[in-house]
Amino acid sequence: MHDPAPTACLIIIGNEILSGRTQDSNLRFLAKELNLKGIRLREVRVIPDVEQTIVDTVNACRAAFTYIFTTGGIGPTHDDITSASVAKAFGVALEKNPEAAAMLDAHYGAEHVTPARLRMAYVPAGAQLVENPVSGAPGFQIGNVFVLAGVPHIMQAMYHNLKDRLKDGAIELSETLSARIPESYAAEGLRAIQSRHPEVDIGSYPHMKDKELSVSIVMRATDAKVLAAAKAEVHHLLASLADEVIEGEI
Amino acid sequence: MHDPAPTACLIIIGNEILSGRTQDSNLRFLAKELNLKGIRLREVRVIPDVEQTIVDTVNACRAAFTYIFTTGGIGPTHDDITSASVAKAFGVALEKNPEAAAMLDAHYGAEHVTPARLRMAYVPAGAQLVENPVSGAPGFQIGNVFVLAGVPHIMQAMYHNLKDRLKDGAIELSETLSARIPESYAAEGLRAIQSRHPEVDIGSYPHMKDKELSVSIVMRATDAKVLAAAKAEVHHLLASLADEVIEGEI
Repeated sequence: MHDPAPTACLIIIGNEILSGRTQDSNLRFLAKELNLKGIRLREVRVIPDVEQTIVDTVNACRAAFTYIFTTGGIGPTHDDITSASVAKAFGVALEKNPEAAAMLDAHYGAEHVTPARLRMAYVPAGAQLVENPVSGAPGFQIGNVFVLAGVPHIMQAMYHNLKDRLKDGAIELSETLSARIPESYAAEGLRAIQSRHPEVDIGSYPHMKDKELSVSIVMRATDAKVLAAAKAEVHHLLASLADEVIEGEI
Repeated sequence: MHDPAPTACLIIIGNEILSGRTQDSNLRFLAKELNLKGIRLREVRVIPDVEQTIVDTVNACRAAFTYIFTTGGIGPTHDDITSASVAKAFGVALEKNPEAAAMLDAHYGAEHVTPARLRMAYVPAGAQLVENPVSGAPGFQIGNVFVLAGVPHIMQAMYHNLKDRLKDGAIELSETLSARIPESYAAEGLRAIQSRHPEVDIGSYPHMKDKELSVSIVMRATDAKVLAAAKAEVHHLLASLADEVIEGEI
């Protein structure tokens, strides 16, 4: 399938996600925001706070996708090793950024910028900062890699400060139809519709509610006409199988 | 750090996660369950329903971790390509498994096992089934790879049917202490405690509630004595910085 859109990969860095302590919500936020820019989130990796793992993962991913976003590990404590690891991945020094130091001074007051807090002013040489209106310490961009906070409301604020740097792609439009039938009833018809419409990505998602099986068919395409044609066929298929075809999720 | 425990990687397969439509909850479930077995979840990847991506990811991960779990893509529709992709990753045929077919017959009644449903009886040659008490169609194990459903309550039931096949590791014990101080206040002291206790994994997690900054320190180790020693030092540190030291999360 031809795909002219920029691609993205999210690297979630943090032992607290892998241990099950913390439920990630940055994936879903970023996925929806990137959809609005026409950028396809193609992969997510969750990795621990281990330097070599971060270096290897950043280097593998930045070669494979248009944009990389990392979340987590840029705070003031010993377990915050993302900035140093990204510097290593790029083979550059981690150095004190005067602009970042000024941001910390402005947020905390210079007399409260302790050595621990000052660590957050160290970024890879050549990085461009991403402002943090919530808690002062910035994220940064180096090459095609954006390094962001892990705390969701800080991460979200940083994203809004960097999104204009991203190039837009063709926006993927989406339609959903649902019906109260087992997914398998629609399987054969959906397969035929998918093969007639290769430019439409058709997903079938079963669910069970009050012991009743139902299915939602999600269709995505960049061309509105192509999408409408596929939707009409899915509607016709579901109408032949169920009492009612529901627009959207059930 | 020496780590004698088995490791695991979760591969979440599904466009619906990458588009932001669906919030994953299998990661957290699996992380907590594996903790109970002393198995370390070391990496998670979220990838789309694309055959080559599934093949490459399964092959990269199965060489690097003790156990691989996949979720998603084993239903009856055209977008369910996980089983075929895993067969390809292992270089074996995808073939009808008589035992799996019998499970479908038992669940649906033989006369309701349509060609679409029968697809769910096809697994890689040599695979061992994982029973599905919820909706009949089984998951399977091939080599060190466990292929499970994406729907959380089905995935969970499958996990409980396979967990006795996993070897146990040293269970990681965990302690948490919290205090109403900015994370950075504890940074220097925590760094020193971490360097004195390399066998303890010490994580520092800031939060803000009612505009008040606080921090939770999570300590993990397999040796209870070692953990208790580190905890005592963290308690002493926090008591020197805050009015109150709180057991657990704040």
